[in-house]
Amino acid sequence: MSNARPRLAFAMSAEVLDRVFTPDRRAAFAEVSDVVGVLTEFTSPEAERLLGEVEVLVTGWGSPLVDEQALDAAPRLRAIVHAAGSVKHHLTAEVWQRDIVVSSAAAANAVPVAEYTVAMIVLANKRVLPIARRYRAERRDFDVEADFPWLGNYGNRVGIVGASKIGRNVIELLRPYDLEVVVADPFLGEEDARELGVRLVELDELLATSDVVSVHAPSLPETQGMLDATRIASLKPGATLLNTARGELIDQEALTARVLRGDLYAILDVTTPWVLDRAHPLYDHEHVLLTPHIAGSLGLELGRLAEVALDETRRLARGLPLAYGVLADELSFTA
Amino acid sequence: MSNARPRLAFAMSAEVLDRVFTPDRRAAFAEVSDVVGVLTEFTSPEAERLLGEVEVLVTGWGSPLVDEQALDAAPRLRAIVHAAGSVKHHLTAEVWQRDIVVSSAAAANAVPVAEYTVAMIVLANKRVLPIARRYRAERRDFDVEADFPWLGNYGNRVGIVGASKIGRNVIELLRPYDLEVVVADPFLGEEDARELGVRLVELDELLATSDVVSVHAPSLPETQGMLDATRIASLKPGATLLNTARGELIDQEALTARVLRGDLYAILDVTTPWVLDRAHPLYDHEHVLLTPHIAGSLGLELGRLAEVALDETRRLARGLPLAYGVLADELSFTA
Repeated sequence: MSNARPRLAFAMSAEVLDRVFTPDRRAAFAEVSDVVGVLTEFTSPEAERLLGEVEVLVTGWGSPLVDEQALDAAPRLRAIVHAAGSVKHHLTAEVWQRDIVVSSAAAANAVPVAEYTVAMIVLANKRVLPIARRYRAERRDFDVEADFPWLGNYGNRVGIVGASKIGRNVIELLRPYDLEVVVADPFLGEEDARELGVRLVELDELLATSDVVSVHAPSLPETQGMLDATRIASLKPGATLLNTARGELIDQEALTARVLRGDLYAILDVTTPWVLDRAHPLYDHEHVLLTPHIAGSLGLELGRLAEVALDETRRLARGLPLAYGVLADELSFTA
Repeated sequence: MSNARPRLAFAMSAEVLDRVFTPDRRAAFAEVSDVVGVLTEFTSPEAERLLGEVEVLVTGWGSPLVDEQALDAAPRLRAIVHAAGSVKHHLTAEVWQRDIVVSSAAAANAVPVAEYTVAMIVLANKRVLPIARRYRAERRDFDVEADFPWLGNYGNRVGIVGASKIGRNVIELLRPYDLEVVVADPFLGEEDARELGVRLVELDELLATSDVVSVHAPSLPETQGMLDATRIASLKPGATLLNTARGELIDQEALTARVLRGDLYAILDVTTPWVLDRAHPLYDHEHVLLTPHIAGSLGLELGRLAEVALDETRRLARGLPLAYGVLADELSFTA
């Protein structure tokens, strides 16, 4: 960095700036950097003037694309600090070619998804929602153990599909629980799995033997429809399939058909399309919990992303390396 | 213990024996003790004959009362190992007066309640169930952050009422979460709270400032209606009250009235009476999750209790002290 107080601009949608970068937080940025402005586009004369000065760009959801033209306008740019998860959609390979360092809050963004997943695993093993639904309908005591066999968070197997940041966070949070956690990931070695304290298995074994299957794979061309009809059919009767990743990882028609047959539970925070057709049977089925993409950072949790960006800015001001640097070659196999 | 393989009998309901002490587990008991039989009552001639031999009694839900008469019939009895939580309802003070050591699986029984509580705290902060309900009703994308302010598991305050075994387990499980945990307990010192990593506050401050309040106090004469109408009124607008302890700790009429007013969420695994009247408004309200006392050990989780009893029996056989001994004077201030 050319000086101890880098010149910094924010680039994101006005709404995200407003919600995530509250006045308190912007004041904290101003303590360690010279905040020169806010950019919602990179092409107006005013935007180009700001880009000409800027050394650190703090990006967020809705950031304009950082392409060759934007980079040409920003000759002093040395670091892009992204206050959200993936940098795939607004950064181009050109950024790394110009030796600009990049940081992402993907690790912080993984936290709420992992917390949500663990809560749902506990609920799924305990059959909380079907029991609550029956209790509301019948309004009398009933023998939950007779009606819901293999109930409980003790000894059941949880299958984590994908040792991504989120998958690893889930594994870490599940450590104190008496559950058997297995993981499937083509890029994970036996030793890495041992270090995580879980057993590495093939995806097909995981699907056929787990009581809860939770999907944490990245959405890549190779992973589309990864849980195809055959694999959906192989899930244990009474198992729960939990998807907080992307709808397109799962053959949704096969999933829907199996749910309608009655021997599969599904907890879906994502679908294809993003919002299902109004008549879709997944909305109503008693074995399904359907939510509109809420597992990730929302509301107060956005503050965590801003705090990470602030910490990274402090590191830059002190000449320290970024804590959550993203290398160009990571883009091809992460979300 | 008079010999290395103590004579052991089970005393519990036939149903609990069947569900919890599976053939595998009973075989494990037979490896370290001479299992002389199963008692579902203590007064028949056959029961009295068995009691005459027994050195270790493994009790469970539905155990007959261990009173003076039963103890007179069991002169060799040296240990009672309870494979469930409270020993209050089947053991009398006489047990301790005769120098019989007592163990309980209360610590193991606390585990599923704590896990359930943590899952519900995550769900409550994230407003998962109201959002799911609205999504099902409206079947379109909506701005969850605008409609549900202060959403998220970041920075919100969680108030733990009672540093009981369960309360402490909840605190422990919440350590990795970015939530501010405060605790109220008249028997907890400042230093103990610091060791737990939480701040000790007065109950009234806890109630007025927490985003989620979770009740883990024992049911004692002094704690009946502890959360009275004034205290229910003091809860923050939009707060969630979580009760997995006992219905009678809360003024349920005041709670119901506040829920109906619309600015309080409630997650209730217990009520007064145990099953509410069919017409009770808590069954239907969209801010309420009502479950029939399922947070505690159920199904597979009962296996954990049996494993604790087995471990304690092994310790007795080896002449080791019990790991989870219960002293007579603990009964007056625990659940």
